[in-house]
Amino acid sequence: MALEVYWGSGSPYSWRVLLALERKCLPYESHLLQFSKQEHKSPQMLKMNFRGKVPVIKDGDYVCFESLAILYYLDLKYPEPPIFGRTPEEAGTIMRVICEYQAYAEVELNKIVRAVFGPQLDGKSEEITHAMHVVAGEARTIEQRLSKSDWVVGEEISAADMVIFPGIQLLLRALSRPVAAELRSRFLPLEVNYPAIARWIHRVETLPGYERTYPPHWREPAPPAVVTGH
Amino acid sequence: MALEVYWGSGSPYSWRVLLALERKCLPYESHLLQFSKQEHKSPQMLKMNFRGKVPVIKDGDYVCFESLAILYYLDLKYPEPPIFGRTPEEAGTIMRVICEYQAYAEVELNKIVRAVFGPQLDGKSEEITHAMHVVAGEARTIEQRLSKSDWVVGEEISAADMVIFPGIQLLLRALSRPVAAELRSRFLPLEVNYPAIARWIHRVETLPGYERTYPPHWREPAPPAVVTGH
Repeated sequence: MALEVYWGSGSPYSWRVLLALERKCLPYESHLLQFSKQEHKSPQMLKMNFRGKVPVIKDGDYVCFESLAILYYLDLKYPEPPIFGRTPEEAGTIMRVICEYQAYAEVELNKIVRAVFGPQLDGKSEEITHAMHVVAGEARTIEQRLSKSDWVVGEEISAADMVIFPGIQLLLRALSRPVAAELRSRFLPLEVNYPAIARWIHRVETLPGYERTYPPHWREPAPPAVVTGH
Repeated sequence: MALEVYWGSGSPYSWRVLLALERKCLPYESHLLQFSKQEHKSPQMLKMNFRGKVPVIKDGDYVCFESLAILYYLDLKYPEPPIFGRTPEEAGTIMRVICEYQAYAEVELNKIVRAVFGPQLDGKSEEITHAMHVVAGEARTIEQRLSKSDWVVGEEISAADMVIFPGIQLLLRALSRPVAAELRSRFLPLEVNYPAIARWIHRVETLPGYERTYPPHWREPAPPAVVTGH
């Protein structure tokens, strides 16, 4: 039986797992859940992950959740091509860069995304300005890495790319909204301020199977008075 | 040349790494840095980790930081005994439980610790009450796991124990302070409310080499504790 993946459109954590599955050319049965219908909180889903979060994978009898744990499991179970490097040193650095992203960039990036898509951007300008400052700093660190190599760590796409890429795509989508005009002006155009990241995004977008990983609802026409990006 | 470890007393992130080194019986050169003297921000340390955080390890020419990345590196470089399980499934579950702890418990636990050791406990009572509620819920989940097994995941001590144990010890230390009397009453006595966690703590405390991992300044009579690092 093929591996089953339960995921949600626009969830950066889900996107990581799809990128890994495509990279490893693993056949999988895709279960796209509708957040709007609370399908991720259904009894069947809660039985697999009591937290009611996606992504969740089911591989035979084995269930795993938390995106990083899924990437790690997939790499041990289906080693070729590796996504955590080919040596302990490379693996350590890939995990280090993932931990750094999660500890220093992601928390602040999520604040920006929530503020842009939520109703609270105005009242939180100081917090969001700070978050943008932190994210810009972390983006500069990633830019430096990508100016020396095609991928965030090492000579091949790795779990570090798979973790960071969906977050950056989500940030760009948030920044494309009219309400984010001021924030956007400090970060974009990407090609000018972060040229290596821009090239890397194009590199990921042209990977085999990428189209299957792209959030389906991002392709839909934007609701009136809202400009969708990217 | 022996592996070198740069760490700080009371840093739960440092403690994780020491527990792993002792478990694997690896010889190491210990560099205990004084946070009060900003030794973790010295030029030598910043050269290894520009973020100025501990723990950092140096193994020959290879430098790694971020505690989870160090545990992962150590397990690949020195596989016996394993700390990420013996099968992909066990490894995935260990990593999942670590990710869950970091995503759901640690953020709130750190708020409590900062509030108790800082000056802000009074003004933040609502936030801290909420944090304590979340931490108590996560502790119940860990209690359930430990009521079925001696260790958080599987039949042996793993990276999941090493990640969670220092955090719980830090929480207990914070709750022992006079200022935390009210919070304490909702969580302690551990032996009554979380008996499996209490037994597990004793189990870890009697591991070979445990004494070498214990924060030296916690043995001193005077209070001030410092939390840094990631």
